[in-house]
Amino acid sequence: MSRFEPVALEHASRLLNHGPTVLVTTAFAGQRNLMAAAWSMPVEFTPPRIAIVIDKSTLTKELINASGQFAIIIPSAEFATQTYAAGSISGRDGDKFDRLQLQAQQGSVLGLPVLEDACIAWMECRLIPESHTEKAYDTCFAEVVSAAADSRAFSGGHWHMDASNPATHTIHYLGAGLFMSLGGQITTQSPF
Amino acid sequence: MSRFEPVALEHASRLLNHGPTVLVTTAFAGQRNLMAAAWSMPVEFTPPRIAIVIDKSTLTKELINASGQFAIIIPSAEFATQTYAAGSISGRDGDKFDRLQLQAQQGSVLGLPVLEDACIAWMECRLIPESHTEKAYDTCFAEVVSAAADSRAFSGGHWHMDASNPATHTIHYLGAGLFMSLGGQITTQSPF
Repeated sequence: MSRFEPVALEHASRLLNHGPTVLVTTAFAGQRNLMAAAWSMPVEFTPPRIAIVIDKSTLTKELINASGQFAIIIPSAEFATQTYAAGSISGRDGDKFDRLQLQAQQGSVLGLPVLEDACIAWMECRLIPESHTEKAYDTCFAEVVSAAADSRAFSGGHWHMDASNPATHTIHYLGAGLFMSLGGQITTQSPF
Repeated sequence: MSRFEPVALEHASRLLNHGPTVLVTTAFAGQRNLMAAAWSMPVEFTPPRIAIVIDKSTLTKELINASGQFAIIIPSAEFATQTYAAGSISGRDGDKFDRLQLQAQQGSVLGLPVLEDACIAWMECRLIPESHTEKAYDTCFAEVVSAAADSRAFSGGHWHMDASNPATHTIHYLGAGLFMSLGGQITTQSPF
């Protein structure tokens, strides 16, 4: 049973605020794909907008160009091996969901393939075409139109990652197959 | 004694690969400033280029517009309180380095203020002017022209964050004064 619940759009950018490694899914004309992406960030809270680097030579970018949309999936620590595998093969060699034995669900607004098993959040995005930055920096801007999260990890607009749920912490890619998951909380107060 | 050593430019983007929260420093005509920034990412390895969101209303953006350059500082877990404080006050109300009692060093190429006490890496950047994305998304693109890191945390082009050095792990901002530091390593191998 999925523990996913909708995330209010004004909280969607918080899903990427702390720099997790993500997966990107796309679909167009009966073809779908999945890739890993270490480089993404929010650029605005309201409306919720994000930037993500997607190499212009990839099948994912080809499908985004055709459809104008994509989804971002946030994997948990339990999904690190599949995340790395998704980044190691090309969808041009066959459907990656099948090769990785992944069962996809459908996003609520765009119907894009999303993953709720061992992943902790997703958001569906509409590309905001910016041909110059897509060409010069492989950087795509997009607006989030729907989002949902595993309520154990994110609810009420906030992440809940503590010692009680290490398996549902986000992962952060250092390179060469090595991820780190988020560990301890540090609560701060400004002296001002 | 500083433990900082130069980072080869082809490895500089790896400093931001995993989404740490950073500080941004600027200086122009005798004025300097420091701000916290949760939203940044690499966009290219060679040449090393990054994107970072800097609100157009800030003193930092004003100084970047005037100078065409800025530095990115990566704080360690030990620097979380100062990072939050830097994000809670404005440089328009007085020099933040003085108010936070920070001793700045000088970057090696641009001479920008950098921090080596309780911070673990820095990079000096030249702005690549992109007026549209700066205006529409507060997103600045820049090329890294020098970088250095605490050799306990990053050397040979790789991060070294494990159970032996939790105080020098990077921090990742969740919002509302709450950071998390990186915790456990997850080593993966692709099945393909």
